[in-house]
Amino acid sequence: MDYTTILGLIAGSLTTAAFVPQLHRAWKTKSLEDVSLLTYIAFTIGVFLWAIYGFAIGSLPVILTNSVTFVLACSILVLKIQHKKRS
Amino acid sequence: MDYTTILGLIAGSLTTAAFVPQLHRAWKTKSLEDVSLLTYIAFTIGVFLWAIYGFAIGSLPVILTNSVTFVLACSILVLKIQHKKRS
Repeated sequence: MDYTTILGLIAGSLTTAAFVPQLHRAWKTKSLEDVSLLTYIAFTIGVFLWAIYGFAIGSLPVILTNSVTFVLACSILVLKIQHKKRS
Repeated sequence: MDYTTILGLIAGSLTTAAFVPQLHRAWKTKSLEDVSLLTYIAFTIGVFLWAIYGFAIGSLPVILTNSVTFVLACSILVLKIQHKKRS
């Protein structure tokens, strides 16, 4: 594996793993007042399209990282909608 | 421009533009209690590496979308650190 691919994998792992602490915090506190609903709507649709793009270009790292990010972003979005309904 | 490239550009525009409402909200309310610090640290480093990856593979869309996302994520991170210092 060349350095460029390794760099891409590190970048993808970081931008995917980044949403674990946000999901953990949202799940624990059930408070998402400061989290933007629009951000997670646009971001969730965006990573879904990135995953389809990954299939289109046949890139496994693009498919994998965006599929995982999609699940994480979707979960945060659901918690945000639940929070909004309560408040 | 083929459909795949258009799909990639739409995906990139969405995952980049997604952070505008979060930055706007954070700037307006100055409240970032529910926003995860770790998320924005990892995400900011991640998109920076994606931008370098874009240079390495010579992909203008990857360079452009990640450079803009980097500026947005960096601004949210600075506001979060300022909020953390105050509280």
